[in-house]
Amino acid sequence: MSWRRPDHDERKRGYHHGNLREALVDAAMALIGERGPEGVTLAEAARMAGVSTAAPYRHFKDRDALMAEVAKRGFSRFADRIRAARHPDGADAVESLMGIGRAYIGFARSEPALYSAMFEGGVSPATDGELRREADRAFEILLSACERIRNTLPEDTRAPALMMALHIWSLSHGVASLFARGDRGRRAIPVPPEDLLEAGTLIYLRGLGYEPGK
Amino acid sequence: MSWRRPDHDERKRGYHHGNLREALVDAAMALIGERGPEGVTLAEAARMAGVSTAAPYRHFKDRDALMAEVAKRGFSRFADRIRAARHPDGADAVESLMGIGRAYIGFARSEPALYSAMFEGGVSPATDGELRREADRAFEILLSACERIRNTLPEDTRAPALMMALHIWSLSHGVASLFARGDRGRRAIPVPPEDLLEAGTLIYLRGLGYEPGK
Repeated sequence: MSWRRPDHDERKRGYHHGNLREALVDAAMALIGERGPEGVTLAEAARMAGVSTAAPYRHFKDRDALMAEVAKRGFSRFADRIRAARHPDGADAVESLMGIGRAYIGFARSEPALYSAMFEGGVSPATDGELRREADRAFEILLSACERIRNTLPEDTRAPALMMALHIWSLSHGVASLFARGDRGRRAIPVPPEDLLEAGTLIYLRGLGYEPGK
Repeated sequence: MSWRRPDHDERKRGYHHGNLREALVDAAMALIGERGPEGVTLAEAARMAGVSTAAPYRHFKDRDALMAEVAKRGFSRFADRIRAARHPDGADAVESLMGIGRAYIGFARSEPALYSAMFEGGVSPATDGELRREADRAFEILLSACERIRNTLPEDTRAPALMMALHIWSLSHGVASLFARGDRGRRAIPVPPEDLLEAGTLIYLRGLGYEPGK
């Protein structure tokens, strides 16, 4: 076990001053790093936070509620990252989309525990309103980039921006999940995952009538 | 706990007649179904198989070796499924690729435990030769479909078949992981995931010069 038992002062602070919630979230993230999302239980998080196994229930009704909180923070950080990677509105719309794609892959690589909690942790934005709102923030950035590109495409070949966003998300998610996560990588590929995604995105956009340099 | 303790005869059979290995694989698949891939431990699999916690080590050196065996069987079943879904060689190459895509999504939907073990279980074909061979069998089917399509594309717009296969795999994996797994689905989408994937694949192929009906 890599955790140490918090000392008496820490426990007292945690228990009396209302930051047990934060301590449980930290514990869950540490557990994900050690064992993956399915290794998280409320009892284990309580042990790491130095409180009784009953104490977490004042903050989280069950394990999935704790995981949803971690996933929510993951989506929040994720949205910040892709917003920062997107070029400002004056920039080329396609370059903006490529920046988002690179940030998606970079997040999977640098935050594997959060990525796993967000997408493989057994909690779903479909059933959690607050989590849904954080996930929506990230999706809106992608959707808005797709809308900008769509407006530059010939009318007879363009697709709804929502469909474009779902396709680009799926492609990004596939490349990131399969090829960007170190020894979880499914297969050695001949180019960095960022380049694989960029090439796939360009071919896809060309299929919608996009011509580079026009 | 949903498992029952095997009776004495079952344990005797398992222990003395060499099918403990199968019993441990069955236990791991049941545990994945209950708790996800990270919920699998050798000790828990041993308990379900009714043997001592030391007994599994005669068959699997650690938890990852057991998970690799489950993933290997998953890839084997997966390869059979996509081979059956692919049309025979005389059929249209694009229809064949679409059949593979539908089978990919169908597998994620109907075999969530195996899908999870194959792609989210922490074991990687990159570091396990036997697992790699099973995963390769599935990939070769996709690669061969892409080669057939590539041969029909105009020379100036076509891409290497390996790149096409990696793109189509990523798109399929993204759609299947994000949208095809019931309450793990990330977002309600306006069409079935099979249709989303088919539309994305067609747009992608059009970007490589494919023209439907030609």
